[in-house]
Amino acid sequence: MPLGRLVIVGTGLIGGSLARAVRAAGVASRVVGVETEERRRETALKLGVVDEAHAELGPALPGAEVVLFCTPVEQIAAQVLAAARLAKPGTLLTDVGSTKAAIVEAVERELPAGALFVGGHPLAGSEKTGPEFADARLFEDRLVLLTPTPRTPEAALDAARRFWRSLGARVQCLPPDDHDRALALTSHLPHLVASALAGILPAELLSLTASGFRDVTRLAAGATELWTGILLQNRPAVLAALDLLEAHLSAFRQALETRDESALRHLLEQGREKRSRLS
Amino acid sequence: MPLGRLVIVGTGLIGGSLARAVRAAGVASRVVGVETEERRRETALKLGVVDEAHAELGPALPGAEVVLFCTPVEQIAAQVLAAARLAKPGTLLTDVGSTKAAIVEAVERELPAGALFVGGHPLAGSEKTGPEFADARLFEDRLVLLTPTPRTPEAALDAARRFWRSLGARVQCLPPDDHDRALALTSHLPHLVASALAGILPAELLSLTASGFRDVTRLAAGATELWTGILLQNRPAVLAALDLLEAHLSAFRQALETRDESALRHLLEQGREKRSRLS
Repeated sequence: MPLGRLVIVGTGLIGGSLARAVRAAGVASRVVGVETEERRRETALKLGVVDEAHAELGPALPGAEVVLFCTPVEQIAAQVLAAARLAKPGTLLTDVGSTKAAIVEAVERELPAGALFVGGHPLAGSEKTGPEFADARLFEDRLVLLTPTPRTPEAALDAARRFWRSLGARVQCLPPDDHDRALALTSHLPHLVASALAGILPAELLSLTASGFRDVTRLAAGATELWTGILLQNRPAVLAALDLLEAHLSAFRQALETRDESALRHLLEQGREKRSRLS
Repeated sequence: MPLGRLVIVGTGLIGGSLARAVRAAGVASRVVGVETEERRRETALKLGVVDEAHAELGPALPGAEVVLFCTPVEQIAAQVLAAARLAKPGTLLTDVGSTKAAIVEAVERELPAGALFVGGHPLAGSEKTGPEFADARLFEDRLVLLTPTPRTPEAALDAARRFWRSLGARVQCLPPDDHDRALALTSHLPHLVASALAGILPAELLSLTASGFRDVTRLAAGATELWTGILLQNRPAVLAALDLLEAHLSAFRQALETRDESALRHLLEQGREKRSRLS
């Protein structure tokens, strides 16, 4: 660092925030957006989120040193492979997808020798969407998970680690499968459950909700298309997490049905104790 | 209003916040706490949350115009009945319990003729506990549910309504059973689910959580004893709400197992649409 040309594919909330963070930190001299939606391209340009914006990878890539894929998870692998064919050797290709195993596997299956790819996932986000909510500080002091495999070039991992650290993020490595199992429990299942809690509430009871309900269901406001893709890509781990949750809910049900006060207290205490470690 | 002597039984977060709100709004000339825990009595006095504090109802009640019960739900009915025997005629007795049917039924079964009781529940709270977190603005612009029955004296309902409005709260009436069915879905089940999501997370994954997990599990940090009582008192409605949730989770499971993208999108959209009405 500093870099020259940096390309961000997908200028939604995460891509837009990355663009702003890169500019704020002076990490790259030119930030280029690739965005299929015309309205987002215009917004990103108008708000100064990017220096130039393209509808396709082709005109954006020449000269790029880093390409960051911030598109829906089901699109990332194909875009990385397309970029690997267009980019100059030594260009870092990395992504911010919320799932990793399917993406990394699909990319590594066809990645040309010498291309520098490593999967990534910053643990930061928002239920908002679009470059108009882009926030230069979204990654500050946040954890970014990188998911190298035995096939990942050391140069790719080093470059990705340097890049995220230059934005003020902390970096941790773990294998793609471990990432997906962990995120199923910390993010994907919570999203599904938030959606279920909101979904089962009769509309006429919305006026009887307070801050607790708002918090517990905030994730449910996330973009439907993005989350359909995430849940499908991480199916096995999400289903395993759902098994765990359903067993735990059954224990709650039994404690309630049998009026087993001490079992109920024990279950609530488990949750309280675990949650209290986050405060 | 203004009132003379106002007694608050239970000076935890809610009772303490009520005391502060009453003083801030100049609603009563003397705010008296009843609190069995010595440490809380001392804290409430030291921080100026109450003017005087007693360990028992007896010395607190003489001359009281309003008595507010802010104790764990399983204690409220017996305390209301004890206070009804000690208080002068015309004293308003009301509570802030998160469940209503069991409390109102137990009180009305034995309430002396002429005593003024109506059940209440301000939809405001926090996962924090204790008078040290008391917040004078906790009820401002919040909804307070009052649960009169055909046996509730009109004077009790009027006085309770005036009292809450004088603190800046909005007031709505509904029958105790309707209250409990609604709160099972808007508060009690969400609490149980937040606890389950926190409870099933292996401790070593806590460091991989972000703001989404924090939000969705915030309720799980609530006091175990209080919530054991609430869930047990509202068993039938909580179990019915759990039935609904489990059916919805089964629909999610089936959509995932069969990779039914359109079913999954439909389920997520239901939650998103419902949640978006709260923003």
